[in-house]
Amino acid sequence: PSKPTETERCIESLLAVFQRYAGREGDNCTLSKREFLAFMNTELAAFTKNQKDPGVMDRMMKKLDLNSDGQLDFQEFLNLIGGIAVACHNTLLVNTPHP
Amino acid sequence: PSKPTETERCIESLLAVFQRYAGREGDNCTLSKREFLAFMNTELAAFTKNQKDPGVMDRMMKKLDLNSDGQLDFQEFLNLIGGIAVACHNTLLVNTPHP
Repeated sequence: PSKPTETERCIESLLAVFQRYAGREGDNCTLSKREFLAFMNTELAAFTKNQKDPGVMDRMMKKLDLNSDGQLDFQEFLNLIGGIAVACHNTLLVNTPHP
Repeated sequence: PSKPTETERCIESLLAVFQRYAGREGDNCTLSKREFLAFMNTELAAFTKNQKDPGVMDRMMKKLDLNSDGQLDFQEFLNLIGGIAVACHNTLLVNTPHP
């Protein structure tokens, strides 16, 4: 088969990262609160280190956990990635000079 | 600054891919139908080449376009990535032998 595209590599990468953290304890198809925190503090440390309020992570987890089962499934996890990406995207749009 | 993590690289990559296609015509912050088709046929060709029914792409675009403005914004685009990833994820789960 041909070389995967950039988009395919990202999809595979996000799946692999999710499975790496989800596999640490309990159900290996979902992120527990502890697995979510480990993911955030390792993979998105640039984002979390600027959060002075320790309640931010609690509120993020609650907001992302759409079915309120105390776990994040893969779809809920992607909403996190989407939220972070949209935040970056908006920052880039604001900071990009328009000719 | 330190080396970006795998997750950060994916977020940046997806933003860059979106902007590459969104910038082709019209509003450069959204994908038109033509830009969406160009993205699908180039970046996710492994997925689209198996679709025999030409109506599939029309229905995908309609389903993803949550606010029905005929354009996909970045958040709507991420739902596409999420849908493809979840489909891959489920396939992997089904195909992975459980010890």
